[in-house]
Amino acid sequence: MSVDPKRVIADLEELRALTSDENGAQRVAWSPTWLKAQSWFETRFKSLPVEHHYDAAGNLWVTLQGASDRALLLGGHLDSVPNGGWLDGCLGVLTALEVMRAIAEDHNGRPPVTVRLVDWADEEGARFGRSLFGSSAFAGNHSIAADRVRTDRDGETLEATLRECGFDIDRIGDAAIERKNACAYLELHIEQGPVLEELQLPLGVVLGTKGVERHAITFRGQEAHSGSTPMAVRRDALAAAAKLALEIRPIARKHPDSVATMGSVKTFPGIVTAVVGRCETTLDMRDLDASVLASMFEEAQDASRRFAAEERCSVEWSRIWSIEPIPFHPELIELCDQAVRETAGTSHRLPSGPLHDAAEVARAGIPTVMMFTQSLNGLSHNKLEDTKKEHLELAAVAFSRLAEKTMRWIAS
Amino acid sequence: MSVDPKRVIADLEELRALTSDENGAQRVAWSPTWLKAQSWFETRFKSLPVEHHYDAAGNLWVTLQGASDRALLLGGHLDSVPNGGWLDGCLGVLTALEVMRAIAEDHNGRPPVTVRLVDWADEEGARFGRSLFGSSAFAGNHSIAADRVRTDRDGETLEATLRECGFDIDRIGDAAIERKNACAYLELHIEQGPVLEELQLPLGVVLGTKGVERHAITFRGQEAHSGSTPMAVRRDALAAAAKLALEIRPIARKHPDSVATMGSVKTFPGIVTAVVGRCETTLDMRDLDASVLASMFEEAQDASRRFAAEERCSVEWSRIWSIEPIPFHPELIELCDQAVRETAGTSHRLPSGPLHDAAEVARAGIPTVMMFTQSLNGLSHNKLEDTKKEHLELAAVAFSRLAEKTMRWIAS
Repeated sequence: MSVDPKRVIADLEELRALTSDENGAQRVAWSPTWLKAQSWFETRFKSLPVEHHYDAAGNLWVTLQGASDRALLLGGHLDSVPNGGWLDGCLGVLTALEVMRAIAEDHNGRPPVTVRLVDWADEEGARFGRSLFGSSAFAGNHSIAADRVRTDRDGETLEATLRECGFDIDRIGDAAIERKNACAYLELHIEQGPVLEELQLPLGVVLGTKGVERHAITFRGQEAHSGSTPMAVRRDALAAAAKLALEIRPIARKHPDSVATMGSVKTFPGIVTAVVGRCETTLDMRDLDASVLASMFEEAQDASRRFAAEERCSVEWSRIWSIEPIPFHPELIELCDQAVRETAGTSHRLPSGPLHDAAEVARAGIPTVMMFTQSLNGLSHNKLEDTKKEHLELAAVAFSRLAEKTMRWIAS
Repeated sequence: MSVDPKRVIADLEELRALTSDENGAQRVAWSPTWLKAQSWFETRFKSLPVEHHYDAAGNLWVTLQGASDRALLLGGHLDSVPNGGWLDGCLGVLTALEVMRAIAEDHNGRPPVTVRLVDWADEEGARFGRSLFGSSAFAGNHSIAADRVRTDRDGETLEATLRECGFDIDRIGDAAIERKNACAYLELHIEQGPVLEELQLPLGVVLGTKGVERHAITFRGQEAHSGSTPMAVRRDALAAAAKLALEIRPIARKHPDSVATMGSVKTFPGIVTAVVGRCETTLDMRDLDASVLASMFEEAQDASRRFAAEERCSVEWSRIWSIEPIPFHPELIELCDQAVRETAGTSHRLPSGPLHDAAEVARAGIPTVMMFTQSLNGLSHNKLEDTKKEHLELAAVAFSRLAEKTMRWIAS
């Protein structure tokens, strides 16, 4: 096996030098820096026996034709959030490139199955708030009507921005043609959480992406003067919200991998001399098991109504967004587990809290699995995002093993 | 006794018609509408045998000379918050005017002691954030260095605004000259709270103004991804703040008249997908007893540190403002109680949560008491602010009785 992990790290560092500033990575999708990252990436496979093109949604496909048209897909995304890290997304693309290079070399340019690398367009949704843009178009889950009018902070629409980059928003569904012959999808990503670090493991096998229930919850009481209103007659919307902020934690802790987060609290009038009359909060709940997620959602709603009643407030829920849990393919999970074990000695299976393009690919019915590498301090979307070099090198080796195993699985 | 309560209501309604719009009263201090209110007010005492002038801080003094120079002061403020109510402040001024008119009539223009009406300048501090402006200058508690540079939302300084109105900020301390011969100060105000309404009483005797401890409290934990960060490893600054929001209530409820309010909560980064890394809150605590206030402050601090430790966060307190409790004069409280009882049958003594000019007068060592009249629904600083007409009429009668009693008390 001729995979060279050090080449991946050299590529990552070169990309970082090219597309970051003192605040971190600046490869926001559709920006000049992102386009520069793509141009640079095109130079990286010039010497390989591959065809490449951009599909109708802006995804970049690099194809190494095999003996069979049946295809193994390897992917990631070059785009980043503003002030992002050096690994989120591009680790997957650049490791896939090295693995494709190794496969081409090991199989004399003609592997048993076709191998395709995909760099998904706008995974982060950082500018227009529409994440998984390219992969959802590929999967047939695009939402053109809603997305067309999305604007960035300068008021420019997603539609106009796509047009400037050479893409027609009405045609992005044509990216579905790339699904032809796709038999498996593999993606390497940093964990973006603290689990593998706590277990002192370099690598993990991802069971799927958690389902998400994301809601806005507003409590309404009665604004009142902080000096003249006795405690007993208050209808304090913050008190009801505070009870919920604390109650979501035991609700989540009933299940090993559940999370529940109140990320935003806004108080109105929000001044030091007034009892809070209205409190707007957000709740984000996630689990890999749809029935667990549903029961958490119900418990949180019940609790909010109980607390509202206790504080003589009203409560109103409004769904911001939700997605069902997306489990990955059981046989590919096994193969990934073997590859991790052969490389690192020990494996660990965990769900992914964050969403990934792999979720869209799996929803399209293509057998999918992801591999995680450890994140230091659980930090991501941040210039402090980091992973030990030896872990990145182990990841390249393990991902290469997984690709070989999956090619055999496809061929069989 | 020739006090005519209906004249007070007619005056209040005339002032409302002159200085309100569809959003409520607009008599913000130093504004054209406030100046218009003062000009109108000057017409109301034209036929009385009085001298009037503005002091160096903009307070308007109307003096009915008595047989003795020893003076009874009656006061209030014509200024309002933006979109304010029709009673806050001006009820005191216009009732004082009617009482002065009745005293002049009853005593053939020469009462046993001198009676002075004062319309305090800028009680609300609505435009520059400096409340009790005129009364603090009178009391010698001005803060010229800090106030000079205060700006309104258009960037105009208080110093320049005063100059436009004909006042020199460096001279406002000269208002202290008005303290000469002052023997007692009486002020009628709406309660701005729900206590008298709950007791179904029209009038109350104010024991003093509560001391205030006003603080900014910041909890710092660790911002983290809501999807990838297990519950057990979170350092959620909101959780610590939520515990404190709930704990201040039992701390306040240990004492009959204490209040504690968390009026503002701000979360950072404050997005649906991130555990709160920093939570900024405010706390406002009040009681009439300094030792009770001190113990509440200590208990809240202890609780915040305990909650910060439980959530592996840090906590930092920063005092926004504080003032000691200001009890009113025991003998004047008795006289006020008698006047209320004689007028309404029943009396009730209560502290004031909101501050008033009377607090500054009391701090200057002048025997002081306030009378409250019931507020409907506890609403104030709002165009919905209201009090039943029959209660306003009872208030004028009771306040007149209090003035007569106090004149006798001064004379004796």
